[in-house]
Amino acid sequence: MDFDYSPKTKELQARLLQFMDEHIYPAEGAHHAEVEANTAAGKRWTPLQTIENLKLKAQEQGLWNLFYPLDSAQAGGINAGAGLTNQEYAPLAEIMGRVMWSSEVFNCSAPDTGNMETIARYGSTEHKQQWLKPLLEGNIRSAFSMTEPDVASSDATNIETRIERDGDDYVINGRKWWISGAGDPRCAVHIVMGKTNPESDRHTQQSMILVPSNAPGVTVLRPLNVMGYDDAPHGHMEISYKNVCVPASNILLGEGRGFEIAQGRLGPGRIHHCMRLIGLAERALELMCKRTTQRVAFGKPIASQTVTQERIAEARCKIDMARLLTLKAAWMMDVAGNKFAKNEIAMIKVVAPNMACQVIDWAMQAFGGAGMCDDFPLAYAYASARTLRFADGPDEVHRNAIAKLELRKYAAKPQPVDMPITRGC
Amino acid sequence: MDFDYSPKTKELQARLLQFMDEHIYPAEGAHHAEVEANTAAGKRWTPLQTIENLKLKAQEQGLWNLFYPLDSAQAGGINAGAGLTNQEYAPLAEIMGRVMWSSEVFNCSAPDTGNMETIARYGSTEHKQQWLKPLLEGNIRSAFSMTEPDVASSDATNIETRIERDGDDYVINGRKWWISGAGDPRCAVHIVMGKTNPESDRHTQQSMILVPSNAPGVTVLRPLNVMGYDDAPHGHMEISYKNVCVPASNILLGEGRGFEIAQGRLGPGRIHHCMRLIGLAERALELMCKRTTQRVAFGKPIASQTVTQERIAEARCKIDMARLLTLKAAWMMDVAGNKFAKNEIAMIKVVAPNMACQVIDWAMQAFGGAGMCDDFPLAYAYASARTLRFADGPDEVHRNAIAKLELRKYAAKPQPVDMPITRGC
Amino acid sequence: MDFDYSPKTKELQARLLQFMDEHIYPAEGAHHAEVEANTAAGKRWTPLQTIENLKLKAQEQGLWNLFYPLDSAQAGGINAGAGLTNQEYAPLAEIMGRVMWSSEVFNCSAPDTGNMETIARYGSTEHKQQWLKPLLEGNIRSAFSMTEPDVASSDATNIETRIERDGDDYVINGRKWWISGAGDPRCAVHIVMGKTNPESDRHTQQSMILVPSNAPGVTVLRPLNVMGYDDAPHGHMEISYKNVCVPASNILLGEGRGFEIAQGRLGPGRIHHCMRLIGLAERALELMCKRTTQRVAFGKPIASQTVTQERIAEARCKIDMARLLTLKAAWMMDVAGNKFAKNEIAMIKVVAPNMACQVIDWAMQAFGGAGMCDDFPLAYAYASARTLRFADGPDEVHRNAIAKLELRKYAAKPQPVDMPITRGC
Amino acid sequence: MDFDYSPKTKELQARLLQFMDEHIYPAEGAHHAEVEANTAAGKRWTPLQTIENLKLKAQEQGLWNLFYPLDSAQAGGINAGAGLTNQEYAPLAEIMGRVMWSSEVFNCSAPDTGNMETIARYGSTEHKQQWLKPLLEGNIRSAFSMTEPDVASSDATNIETRIERDGDDYVINGRKWWISGAGDPRCAVHIVMGKTNPESDRHTQQSMILVPSNAPGVTVLRPLNVMGYDDAPHGHMEISYKNVCVPASNILLGEGRGFEIAQGRLGPGRIHHCMRLIGLAERALELMCKRTTQRVAFGKPIASQTVTQERIAEARCKIDMARLLTLKAAWMMDVAGNKFAKNEIAMIKVVAPNMACQVIDWAMQAFGGAGMCDDFPLAYAYASARTLRFADGPDEVHRNAIAKLELRKYAAKPQPVDMPITRGC
Repeated sequence: MDFDYSPKTKELQARLLQFMDEHIYPAEGAHHAEVEANTAAGKRWTPLQTIENLKLKAQEQGLWNLFYPLDSAQAGGINAGAGLTNQEYAPLAEIMGRVMWSSEVFNCSAPDTGNMETIARYGSTEHKQQWLKPLLEGNIRSAFSMTEPDVASSDATNIETRIERDGDDYVINGRKWWISGAGDPRCAVHIVMGKTNPESDRHTQQSMILVPSNAPGVTVLRPLNVMGYDDAPHGHMEISYKNVCVPASNILLGEGRGFEIAQGRLGPGRIHHCMRLIGLAERALELMCKRTTQRVAFGKPIASQTVTQERIAEARCKIDMARLLTLKAAWMMDVAGNKFAKNEIAMIKVVAPNMACQVIDWAMQAFGGAGMCDDFPLAYAYASARTLRFADGPDEVHRNAIAKLELRKYAAKPQPVDMPITRGC
Repeated sequence: MDFDYSPKTKELQARLLQFMDEHIYPAEGAHHAEVEANTAAGKRWTPLQTIENLKLKAQEQGLWNLFYPLDSAQAGGINAGAGLTNQEYAPLAEIMGRVMWSSEVFNCSAPDTGNMETIARYGSTEHKQQWLKPLLEGNIRSAFSMTEPDVASSDATNIETRIERDGDDYVINGRKWWISGAGDPRCAVHIVMGKTNPESDRHTQQSMILVPSNAPGVTVLRPLNVMGYDDAPHGHMEISYKNVCVPASNILLGEGRGFEIAQGRLGPGRIHHCMRLIGLAERALELMCKRTTQRVAFGKPIASQTVTQERIAEARCKIDMARLLTLKAAWMMDVAGNKFAKNEIAMIKVVAPNMACQVIDWAMQAFGGAGMCDDFPLAYAYASARTLRFADGPDEVHRNAIAKLELRKYAAKPQPVDMPITRGC
Repeated sequence: MDFDYSPKTKELQARLLQFMDEHIYPAEGAHHAEVEANTAAGKRWTPLQTIENLKLKAQEQGLWNLFYPLDSAQAGGINAGAGLTNQEYAPLAEIMGRVMWSSEVFNCSAPDTGNMETIARYGSTEHKQQWLKPLLEGNIRSAFSMTEPDVASSDATNIETRIERDGDDYVINGRKWWISGAGDPRCAVHIVMGKTNPESDRHTQQSMILVPSNAPGVTVLRPLNVMGYDDAPHGHMEISYKNVCVPASNILLGEGRGFEIAQGRLGPGRIHHCMRLIGLAERALELMCKRTTQRVAFGKPIASQTVTQERIAEARCKIDMARLLTLKAAWMMDVAGNKFAKNEIAMIKVVAPNMACQVIDWAMQAFGGAGMCDDFPLAYAYASARTLRFADGPDEVHRNAIAKLELRKYAAKPQPVDMPITRGC
Repeated sequence: MDFDYSPKTKELQARLLQFMDEHIYPAEGAHHAEVEANTAAGKRWTPLQTIENLKLKAQEQGLWNLFYPLDSAQAGGINAGAGLTNQEYAPLAEIMGRVMWSSEVFNCSAPDTGNMETIARYGSTEHKQQWLKPLLEGNIRSAFSMTEPDVASSDATNIETRIERDGDDYVINGRKWWISGAGDPRCAVHIVMGKTNPESDRHTQQSMILVPSNAPGVTVLRPLNVMGYDDAPHGHMEISYKNVCVPASNILLGEGRGFEIAQGRLGPGRIHHCMRLIGLAERALELMCKRTTQRVAFGKPIASQTVTQERIAEARCKIDMARLLTLKAAWMMDVAGNKFAKNEIAMIKVVAPNMACQVIDWAMQAFGGAGMCDDFPLAYAYASARTLRFADGPDEVHRNAIAKLELRKYAAKPQPVDMPITRGC
């Protein structure tokens, strides 16, 4: 359980931090302004030049595809990534998390990261050539299409989208929502989850299939807001699939393997999300410290009030503990595999978003009204962190899973509760 | 301490509930659609026809100016309101709070309500004729201009806007933000708070003055978002006052009386805000109950999970307690005056927004992703409730005030802490 | 919903407060010392002379049986009580709650109060003569014997004690624990709950029966601690009933009526408990204010730290809200009956102990080490309040009941969740 | 930052776990019974034979002085300990924490551990011979005498005890309380903190001096309870020092060095306390899982309720995070010294007791009444964990220290809060 950052990580951290200082923070204003200008010009759903320019710089500096864990052999000959372990990449994701849109600059943003890894691991050579390559190059984007509006999708057996075999094709019918990234005009492919085998047992009903976003019958219906933010031009979209027909070869790994793929996919994605949230919380704490130091009320800086200090201290404790637990989960995944680490992954999925919501909320409160508006990144950060208490399953589902694993420790040996003191054992 | 609703209140409650059922809930979709259509048409900051139509209906049914506590003699001969006490109006505000935009339909929305009461109480006959009359008629709207971006405005001595006498005029210079309602093109007048006497003692530095919104030098700079909501066409605006010149007679009550007016103004406004929040929380709880009853995960309705039931029960307890405390504050104001009730008013100002945030957050969590978007009113409700943890002063300032009143009980008699048991007294 | 204290209540409040000042607070040291001295003398389970002396004074001043709601006709000709409603008695219980042992001084302590009311309402003339009269006179004490060690007694169907008819007698077998007051040598009678009809439906299996504490087969096994407190000489005892034989006439109301009696009994008892907890919390807050005003750390009184002020303010809010809700429950019971008020009774049962635990915990923290020991009443107060989160059913059971009543509001009309904005209704 | 347990640690863990299974858990009943029997026999403050017997076994197995970090050269030729680092010892302390009295069995109990380390580091050869040797052998016990009843001792400048030079002696006058272990008749020496130089600057006023417990003028006044528990025969005592005269050579390190010694002492002690609390919380969680699995209410095991599962999951997250943070603090102390790790030490001092209180409280709630009494170790565990929220300084003092270190990061560079989005930097 060695949480030290490797020399490779430290070197990348240093370069990434420098890139943030030199290019990302200074571009925050321009990023915001470009979205506003696009909106005013009636082209809200347009990729941002600010980001495209920065992507070139990141590529030049080798800060590209840092998340990508595979070597070229595994990736079908596509040599692209830094080959970092989860534990090595985690502290880099934390840094990117400090500015929410910066991950894309490094081609490290969800859901592309998970989709790239999914195609690399489970796709055919053709899939890799067609989709993985341009994704790794940053030329296209992608979506992961699972959640449905009409059912509680945290219970995947509720999923109603059908993927039906029809000769050499599959025909897809269903409605999905919260499909992040599908608002971007560059989004070229969706990985769609649906039922091929509704009569099969619980874990083999589902399959995943690659659907070009321009296939007939794919309709992006509307963007969904997250507490008022539509996250344009990325977007969280509601999508209808109506008699969408794709070649049978588009299926990933085979019919009924959807769950299996989802399991493999989720671990790294959660590490990324959690580390970004930790970076986001760090930034909120930094802003809180700076603001309360400068802001004077009733004769002294707000930072000198013990009520402020209590929150700063609790924030520091919560952030540091969440980071240690996430690093532990990453380390376990690297050492023993995603499956072995499933409890730790569930734990960080609960801990990190709740921690971030709390820390950001304290920072907002310290900012007063300024904390609610977009002059500072706090309100948007809150909305994003809050969303992650549902995304990939709500807290409650993860907590139940953690509890069941805990209870299982004692289930094997149904001894009475030891009553050690007056009652003997 | 009789919290029973009077016959007059009960009759109005019944009519208001019926109006909500018949006219408000059915118009929620149209309201949302009109804002969207206006935005698409490039006229986001335009009054909504949906509301204007409903205002006529409300006027017809006598559900108009229900908040207005004064009789016509007090109001300079303008006979307008229902003459309800705070306690009588409170349960009506609760009902309006269930749909956040509905207060305007009844001409009961902030900041107009507070402004009308302020002008009625402290304005001259001319002020009343010019501004109060059209406000009571719903023909113009108004803004209350106090908070400043550059200082911690919760400490009013920080206010930097200057109101300087210049012959028969006052000249106003300063920058304000979070000026709610100033985005509406009908907003005709601002009540501006600033310093006339910066050298005077703490509580007589400030004055309030009426400033026509079209006076030269008044510039609405931009709307501010609350989380991602700009609340158009009402809006929360940043405003610059640059050498704005108004007749000296526009001052309210006289130089240095700003604090005094603010005190008188705040009590009823807080009752209204808190009761609306209680209504909002009731609606969130209702939505949560309905949704979790229908939504099935892992084989049973979410409502049958004890984790859901715990939250529903806590929500019920919190809402009912907040309502009782608010009714008590209203009753005290009616019986003994705003000043006497200041502790209770501070208490509800802390309790109600925090309660509403918690209840709405639980409801959002029960809704999953749907809770974050605008298909349901929860995310916007959360943003609104969260804002009220700063508006009119952050929680922390109110808690300090409550604590100081509590500590004062024991300050007069500096006895040692009684050590009742082994140490004697 | 008039929460004003009646003139009768106000007059009794004034006299009770004076009695507290003159007799109770000054006796706290003596009470503690007498228990210590008794313990040292090997007679820990002996009634306290301190209390006996004060009882005479309370009787002299007419501060006796204040809880007793019945008039003499209802009470079988025994004229004893103040005839107060629940709402009238509640504020008196609050005052008594400030010193945990003081209720007994006024013959208002649990479980005697509930037992007296139970016998008065459901007992025969003989029962009243034999047990109610000496209880009202304060000459004997009593116990209520329901909870069992071997089952989760919050689900009363789990109860295993048997009450079996045998000719003219009932024979009782079972084991009970947490039987409060059974440690007192004056405890003369137990009301025992057990199953007469185990095959009957859920709510008619149980009966209640009067069992003299000296009946053969009744064995008090041991006292149980509450945290480290045994509450001597009152005590919370584990008791074995082994072939205990009592006349069939000892049954209350008849076989299978146990639930019915329990329901009628619980309402007033919960009001008393909750109001005493509110008094206890008020005292903790008072101690906290006094202590932090006097105690200086790092150059200023602890009371001047905003972290202290936050807690004092929150305590004030929580206490006042809990009191209002309890008064509402009492008022509903008086106006509409225990059954009608069952939701409010469940709510205060959850709210008051949790509130008291929190307030007392804050006070303890402000006291430092002193808060944990018995020089001050805080640690014992905490233990007592904490216990009331289980007594009469754990929080979780009550919250489930509240939630089910809330959910029921929407169950009758299984309409879809209204989706008011984009989705229509 | 390698948190892996070393082979030496793993081997000791295995042996210690076996010892717990074979000797400690089976002796819990006997330990409790011996205290009860001693109490009944009028000798409550007598060392327990149960523990003495187990000490022999622990010595035989080499599970003795595991905490002791020094080698024999450093320890004045006394070869005694395992020479473990903080990180190596931490997981062993966790195991001991599962049964609160078991540390003594391994000669690893506070305050002896801290006192041994203090004498080893700062004592003279004579001090070591006289006190360290018998302490390491387990033949005597010791006390650390710092906290005072009359002042807020968390601010050490408040300390009023005087240590005054008088020829070849020092004369000590003062009153202390919460002196743990001073109730044990084997307690032979107190390390007393007091002011030698009250006029000196804040950090050089205090000294520490060795005072034999049988020196004339040392009077143990009384034991103090912790939520009703007196912790006999260990005890937390109030002590008077009246003209206590000891040789000048008894001073540790020299006049005015008290703070310096306290700093060095506190780090390891906090690691021990926190790890024991983690063990205690683990045991509470284990009991909670077992109990709720077996206990059936309303037709199913309490463990199958999601409200139970939420708490079990949160407990698992909180425990694991607290452990990781404590291991990090231990690692930092080992690698970089106590001073460097002071922030992490403050953090665990806040985190671990609060975590333990919460986990134990949930377990108590799951146990119902049984959780409050001494049939199970939960109530006593709660009292102990709660006490550690004050011991060594209250949470609030530590949180302030953490916050100040956090704020200091930004103090050096008094830049404006970056306003990255619309406002530029």
